[in-house]
Amino acid sequence: MTNAIEWHTPTWVKHAVFYQIFPERYANGDPDNDPANAQPWGTPPTLHNLMGGDLQGIIDHLDDIQALGCTALYLNPIFQATTSHKYNTFDYFKIDPHFGTLETFHQLVAELHRRDMKLILDAVFNHCGRGFFAFHDIVENGPHSPYVDWFHIAKFPIHPYEGRYPANYRTWWDFRELPKFNTDNPAVRKYLLDVARYWIEQGADGWRLDVPNEIADHTFWREFRTVVKERNPEAYIVGEIWTDGSPWLQGDQFDAVMNYLFRDLCTDFFATTSLRAGDFGAGIDHLITLYHPEVTYAQFNLLGSHDTARFLSVAKEAGSGAVERVKQAVLLQMVFPGAPCVYYGDEIGMEGANDPDCRRCFPWQQPETWNRDLYAWTKRQIALRHAHPALRTGHFTTLLADSDTNLYACARWNDDEQLLVIVNNSDTPWTFDLPLGERLEPHPHYVDLASDDVYEVENLKVREIMLAPWGSLILKGVRG
Amino acid sequence: MTNAIEWHTPTWVKHAVFYQIFPERYANGDPDNDPANAQPWGTPPTLHNLMGGDLQGIIDHLDDIQALGCTALYLNPIFQATTSHKYNTFDYFKIDPHFGTLETFHQLVAELHRRDMKLILDAVFNHCGRGFFAFHDIVENGPHSPYVDWFHIAKFPIHPYEGRYPANYRTWWDFRELPKFNTDNPAVRKYLLDVARYWIEQGADGWRLDVPNEIADHTFWREFRTVVKERNPEAYIVGEIWTDGSPWLQGDQFDAVMNYLFRDLCTDFFATTSLRAGDFGAGIDHLITLYHPEVTYAQFNLLGSHDTARFLSVAKEAGSGAVERVKQAVLLQMVFPGAPCVYYGDEIGMEGANDPDCRRCFPWQQPETWNRDLYAWTKRQIALRHAHPALRTGHFTTLLADSDTNLYACARWNDDEQLLVIVNNSDTPWTFDLPLGERLEPHPHYVDLASDDVYEVENLKVREIMLAPWGSLILKGVRG
Repeated sequence: MTNAIEWHTPTWVKHAVFYQIFPERYANGDPDNDPANAQPWGTPPTLHNLMGGDLQGIIDHLDDIQALGCTALYLNPIFQATTSHKYNTFDYFKIDPHFGTLETFHQLVAELHRRDMKLILDAVFNHCGRGFFAFHDIVENGPHSPYVDWFHIAKFPIHPYEGRYPANYRTWWDFRELPKFNTDNPAVRKYLLDVARYWIEQGADGWRLDVPNEIADHTFWREFRTVVKERNPEAYIVGEIWTDGSPWLQGDQFDAVMNYLFRDLCTDFFATTSLRAGDFGAGIDHLITLYHPEVTYAQFNLLGSHDTARFLSVAKEAGSGAVERVKQAVLLQMVFPGAPCVYYGDEIGMEGANDPDCRRCFPWQQPETWNRDLYAWTKRQIALRHAHPALRTGHFTTLLADSDTNLYACARWNDDEQLLVIVNNSDTPWTFDLPLGERLEPHPHYVDLASDDVYEVENLKVREIMLAPWGSLILKGVRG
Repeated sequence: MTNAIEWHTPTWVKHAVFYQIFPERYANGDPDNDPANAQPWGTPPTLHNLMGGDLQGIIDHLDDIQALGCTALYLNPIFQATTSHKYNTFDYFKIDPHFGTLETFHQLVAELHRRDMKLILDAVFNHCGRGFFAFHDIVENGPHSPYVDWFHIAKFPIHPYEGRYPANYRTWWDFRELPKFNTDNPAVRKYLLDVARYWIEQGADGWRLDVPNEIADHTFWREFRTVVKERNPEAYIVGEIWTDGSPWLQGDQFDAVMNYLFRDLCTDFFATTSLRAGDFGAGIDHLITLYHPEVTYAQFNLLGSHDTARFLSVAKEAGSGAVERVKQAVLLQMVFPGAPCVYYGDEIGMEGANDPDCRRCFPWQQPETWNRDLYAWTKRQIALRHAHPALRTGHFTTLLADSDTNLYACARWNDDEQLLVIVNNSDTPWTFDLPLGERLEPHPHYVDLASDDVYEVENLKVREIMLAPWGSLILKGVRG
């Protein structure tokens, strides 16, 4: 970039570690607001069942989340809706009664902010549920509704509930239960921007935008940014973009995107092992230069979410060493530029296939099922990130990406420190010299952060690194 | 009654004159909240059209309402719904966006209370709209909904929108758009009682209960009374009962009912003239003894409503002298025990057949269409009521009800004053002596309140009263 930029991404995000919670399944803190037909906690998820998770459950476990090292929450939708996932919004201004009340929300915000933690919410603005007041008005009144221009009605009558006729209105992916908003209508814009403003005023620290690419109108997202940043200049705006997010990341719309490109690389390299280190490194190098550094440092780096199978489950399908490969991915996530996000339960080895199976209940009552080793590992890598500013706001470069050995290494550094991270994503032990590349200032020695073992540098290479199968190493440069 | 009673009805009601407003049609005070497809003000009402009336319009005209002499408002439903009448509630906790906001409601309350005026709202608790969150949840989830017990579902699937199948759930009068609540469900009771409490807390002075007879469970209405009176012991509870309301009027449920029995008598005697004075008087005498005096003095006495053709229109169908007969009815309403209610626009001679025609827009921009004579008459009779406590809390007796002449007369009195009201509901002039009956203490003279003419008493009769066709007279007893 040759021009000075006029914008920045929120500072707190660059230093944050997120924890994503699917509220219906994390913890049930208030039995009084349970759905009347709530299933026993831990019942396998189906399309319809509810288990009673709520905001009080989250409040009750904030100490646990903080103990893991997470400093921010991303919550899947919490506004009133008829599903467990609540992406079919009924009322954007109301906390779902099964999750709590506005007061519970305010308590959650207060408990988070007291811990210097942050909260981002899920903004589902492309579509709503059939029960949303404006769409429901059309269901009741047809062409006589004042809201016919809030959606894309092709012709009347519409058929919101009768599958054997064409729906006659635009939807999200042909789901007639999710009518698509007409965001060209100023009244719709005003409504949605009022929603955005309202929840920032209620204490949210940002928005995760659901399928924002489907609101194919950058002016909408520019207005959205203006409204949100007016209320809180440090509010975080992160879009759910599964591909290259550049069109939204020029400083005028989003701060960042959910880094599914990062997740895809990690999935292919560490979980399914369908990718070798050379291609993984090339992918990482592409990704690291794809966006402006302000964006890259604020990216939302995930390994899985409510929309994917859990990373451990994917890794297990690919064969032995699954937990070790997951650990490598977690390590890489925690040393990579951008804010890492732990999907609730991944830290204890929860499993699950694609949705709804990836939305199981957190097994609070079955601690014997928790993978304590994975938990300790995750916690340690998060602590590592917090301990070293270079891992958060330092430079990044790939040092080694070798398909033959499947070794991968990268460096993070700033004026004060230099860290090297090396993983052996293979079932073979390797001994090798690690080239320090062209961008690093070589230090005379490097020390293993875990063992304090010292490594010598010769000819711009760290000498005689030994890595066990699926082993990893973090070295810190020593000047003296 | 031999036992001292432990209950009373609100004092303010006994002294109140109500004005009933159908909010969508009274006045448009805020064009910014108009429905997008609002029709020009004054368009004839249909099942679907909206004209833009709102709460600000009511606020803007409170001086007018007060100038007429009214001291309380009864508003048809103002909570969010998809119709002009809003009896198909979508959200009981939200002012309809086309009517205003909670803030507008608070302004209305403040402006009313500043004038020492009161406000009662419409409680539609027998049924809701199809968009109400709990019913909508069943529409979405069928038997998997947490709310299946909130309604009376006969079997799944239900057919809320497909008329060619049985609805499969109980409704109000076979309207599938109005599902009937299961008020046996404690969760439903709690919800509705929370609604009742909430709006009293927001400043409402009472509730008009829609079709409460269809919630065939007196325990519900006892709980309702407890909840409302706990918040405000002087809150008014008036049920929409078209027949004998005795089962609800024993002090444990309602304070009063909408006095459709009174309206029916007035309609038959004054408007359609299908009833002669003898039967009218018998009906009045039955009505006056039907309830405990605490109830009778707090009855809600109407000549018409949003659910009937307008009184003037009914009178016109019966032939000549319609306005004069309306005036007689208004006079009788204003001297009868119980709080009179003027249906918006009746005072200027608005017309309209059964709904939706009786819900026309108030013709603010066409003052040339107002019946100034009727307005002055109505205002004068209201002032008469306010001027004489005996008309509000005095005793009542029929003095004359003669089918031959169609003369009717009654008396109101207390320790301080005695008033006689006589109407000639015929096209014949009559001269007659008015018997004072057994309950009155005869005064030596009576004076015409309008002309100061003095009438002598002989043999317990007021002598030589002359009444023109459709004439009336108000006499006050003079002791000296």
